[in-house]
Amino acid sequence: MSVRDRVDAHLRSHRERDLAALCELLRIPSVSALPEHAADVRDAAAWVARALQGAGATSARVVETPGHPAVLGTWRSGRPGAPTVLVYGHFDVQPPDPVEAWTSPPFEPTMRDGRLYARGATDDKGNLLAPVRAAAALVAATGELPVNLVFLFEGEEELGSPNLVGLLRAHADELCADALLSADGVMYAHDRWSVLLGLKGLVSVEVHVRTAAHDLHSGVYGGLAPNAAQALAQLLSTLVAPDGSILVEGLASREALSAADREQLAAVPFDADRVLAEGGIAAFWGEPGHEPLERNWLRTTLDVAGVWGGFQGPGTKTIIPGEAGAKITCRLAPGLAPAHAIDLLRAHVARHTPPGAQARVDALPVAVEPFAIAADDPVVEIVRGALRRESGHEPLAMRSGGSLPVAGMLRQELGLDTVMLCWSMPDERLHAPDEFLRLESFDRGARVYADVLARCGERLGR
Amino acid sequence: MSVRDRVDAHLRSHRERDLAALCELLRIPSVSALPEHAADVRDAAAWVARALQGAGATSARVVETPGHPAVLGTWRSGRPGAPTVLVYGHFDVQPPDPVEAWTSPPFEPTMRDGRLYARGATDDKGNLLAPVRAAAALVAATGELPVNLVFLFEGEEELGSPNLVGLLRAHADELCADALLSADGVMYAHDRWSVLLGLKGLVSVEVHVRTAAHDLHSGVYGGLAPNAAQALAQLLSTLVAPDGSILVEGLASREALSAADREQLAAVPFDADRVLAEGGIAAFWGEPGHEPLERNWLRTTLDVAGVWGGFQGPGTKTIIPGEAGAKITCRLAPGLAPAHAIDLLRAHVARHTPPGAQARVDALPVAVEPFAIAADDPVVEIVRGALRRESGHEPLAMRSGGSLPVAGMLRQELGLDTVMLCWSMPDERLHAPDEFLRLESFDRGARVYADVLARCGERLGR
Repeated sequence: MSVRDRVDAHLRSHRERDLAALCELLRIPSVSALPEHAADVRDAAAWVARALQGAGATSARVVETPGHPAVLGTWRSGRPGAPTVLVYGHFDVQPPDPVEAWTSPPFEPTMRDGRLYARGATDDKGNLLAPVRAAAALVAATGELPVNLVFLFEGEEELGSPNLVGLLRAHADELCADALLSADGVMYAHDRWSVLLGLKGLVSVEVHVRTAAHDLHSGVYGGLAPNAAQALAQLLSTLVAPDGSILVEGLASREALSAADREQLAAVPFDADRVLAEGGIAAFWGEPGHEPLERNWLRTTLDVAGVWGGFQGPGTKTIIPGEAGAKITCRLAPGLAPAHAIDLLRAHVARHTPPGAQARVDALPVAVEPFAIAADDPVVEIVRGALRRESGHEPLAMRSGGSLPVAGMLRQELGLDTVMLCWSMPDERLHAPDEFLRLESFDRGARVYADVLARCGERLGR
Repeated sequence: MSVRDRVDAHLRSHRERDLAALCELLRIPSVSALPEHAADVRDAAAWVARALQGAGATSARVVETPGHPAVLGTWRSGRPGAPTVLVYGHFDVQPPDPVEAWTSPPFEPTMRDGRLYARGATDDKGNLLAPVRAAAALVAATGELPVNLVFLFEGEEELGSPNLVGLLRAHADELCADALLSADGVMYAHDRWSVLLGLKGLVSVEVHVRTAAHDLHSGVYGGLAPNAAQALAQLLSTLVAPDGSILVEGLASREALSAADREQLAAVPFDADRVLAEGGIAAFWGEPGHEPLERNWLRTTLDVAGVWGGFQGPGTKTIIPGEAGAKITCRLAPGLAPAHAIDLLRAHVARHTPPGAQARVDALPVAVEPFAIAADDPVVEIVRGALRRESGHEPLAMRSGGSLPVAGMLRQELGLDTVMLCWSMPDERLHAPDEFLRLESFDRGARVYADVLARCGERLGR
């Protein structure tokens, strides 16, 4: 029997036990955003540490942060010179609200139609266990681990990982590795697996416009005073043209698509009609001369995420607003640093503030670096191969218009590029009621992890 | 002794009694906006009706409306063919909030430094009594009234007079008159009396912009979906240019100033530095090529009174707003009808809605006709003369950038132009804490009213 078959046999024979364990973890309401669940987040950390120990890890322990605790584990390979793979994941979950919208209670895991419903089922408790089960299966099948494993599971991902950098610095030696796999992430679709090659960066600023000491009576000051809401609209209208062109100097992506990019985009089964229908939008809108998916994945975008000023209640208040404001977020293409994007926004606002108004730009504490990994990165190649072997199809080279702070922190602190390996599917209601995990992912995920770890042992060895 | 001196003597001898009566009325908290004060508004109505009867009016009664009651009174002249003068005023007051900001309690009238402090002292209880006292003094001085007087005092002015039109229609015969004086209004300054020749009209609309079925995730839809907040800003930026030019076709006033207008404006001691300082604005702003006061008094202005859309809370929410909105108010120059102004706004929005967005314009239930009266109107001439005789100075020909729904309703229903005769001074804290009336106005107001009524009897007779 091949290693692959023995791993598979082990996973099968332990399936019911492992699934029961996952349900145990899912019953712990480890909602990091709600102070009343702090003890539950801690319980989940202790549970994960025990699970690592129970699976056979060399060591596993709960480590403190100024916020919720994390779990660090190591599982040593017997092989001399074996490479080290760091695995990232998180055991905290989003709040379950609105609870009444769930078909079954969010913290009572329930199977229906081959799916396991519970808050955290796919994000990220179900996926976090895949590498642990894979390691146990590899040891059972071969007597030893092909790589040294380091596990880093945090309890604050849903908060934006506010203490992760500190954690990475405090345990830098322990976290030193040759490769980094993330058990948190996303797959293009359940029937179209993918490797993730890029994520957007993110910056967010508030623009505050002031034209007067306070709101003024429009009878007394009509025709006399500048209007902050009007000045703000004028200013915002200079950011992006009606045709979607980005007018902030230096912000629009200048890079032409490479032949490889073009090929990757062309291979994507982008269902325009579905995307339009789901968003309730009449037509795609954005920079002219670029395809929608190219804009979403590869080009910097700018959005006014919020705007306010003057009187918003019912009826009429005859005022000239003295101040108004807006939130502007940019999703940054690879190569554009957050700090530079903010400088460009500041300079634009300074140049385009209308007469009679003063404008201030406040950077909000969100600054995510764009992330990109080469399609021929050795670990990406290994993951691609394992996905191909399991699914029978070449995985899609995927990017995302979203942003992941963790990837930037791990790159910056550990010098490692994150390779996502996670079976969260876009339709699995992450952060929403009736979150679920396809049970087939629970089985296939562990098999693919075992394959990947085995190949890492072969190819990344020193 | 002349009639004038006898009137003055009567007013002097009754001053303490009349002032005590005013204080009695000021102690009634007739706040029309607060349901818990409904009985107080009714008490004030009854008080006013009794005061008219006590002064010698032929008849005075409380009349019902679907809201707060009003008071109708008549005081017949003995002279055959005497003209009829309708006097308008109101006995309801603004809420006193914030009560803690008052030096003395709002409904305990208090004299300090020649001023009477109380809610309603100047708006409008103190001024409403002037014509009543004048009529009593004229009867005492001459044995008869020179005109027939009709009094219309309402209890809902501070609510925008929602039932006034109904009241005017229900009592049209009784309200038939040759001239209309309003004891509610404003004077340019306590040391610079004025006749009011014009008021702006007012319209208010909400613009609702929609680009998607709901807010969209900017990671998923960045570069794909139009942005309602951005589209709204784009649309609002087309209303008024950064230099203040009104871009809505047909909305900007086209009339050139007449020689008389120019002369009137030049005569105004407009204190630009004070207006700038009080508003906390750096410089005047508005249509280029026109003086600030001309814009405020004589040209249509457009203001964005409120704007909203997307996320307004602290921090960042990575959304593309699917809807956004704004309130737009226009102060209308004489000659521009509210319905026409709304048509122009609708047409502009339809023409300038950016690609990807749908916009809807909802007219809000505020539509005030602009008001203007000729400088040589006979009643204006009479008032001007009376003010000149009392003050020793030619009164200023004043306009206002504000709007008064009552003037339009009276014009429309009764065919009468309102001539304001009221000693509310702009610094007397109308609608604010520490509202006051200058006691000298209490004396001089009644004297001027007596003079005006006497001249009306002479000049308006049939």
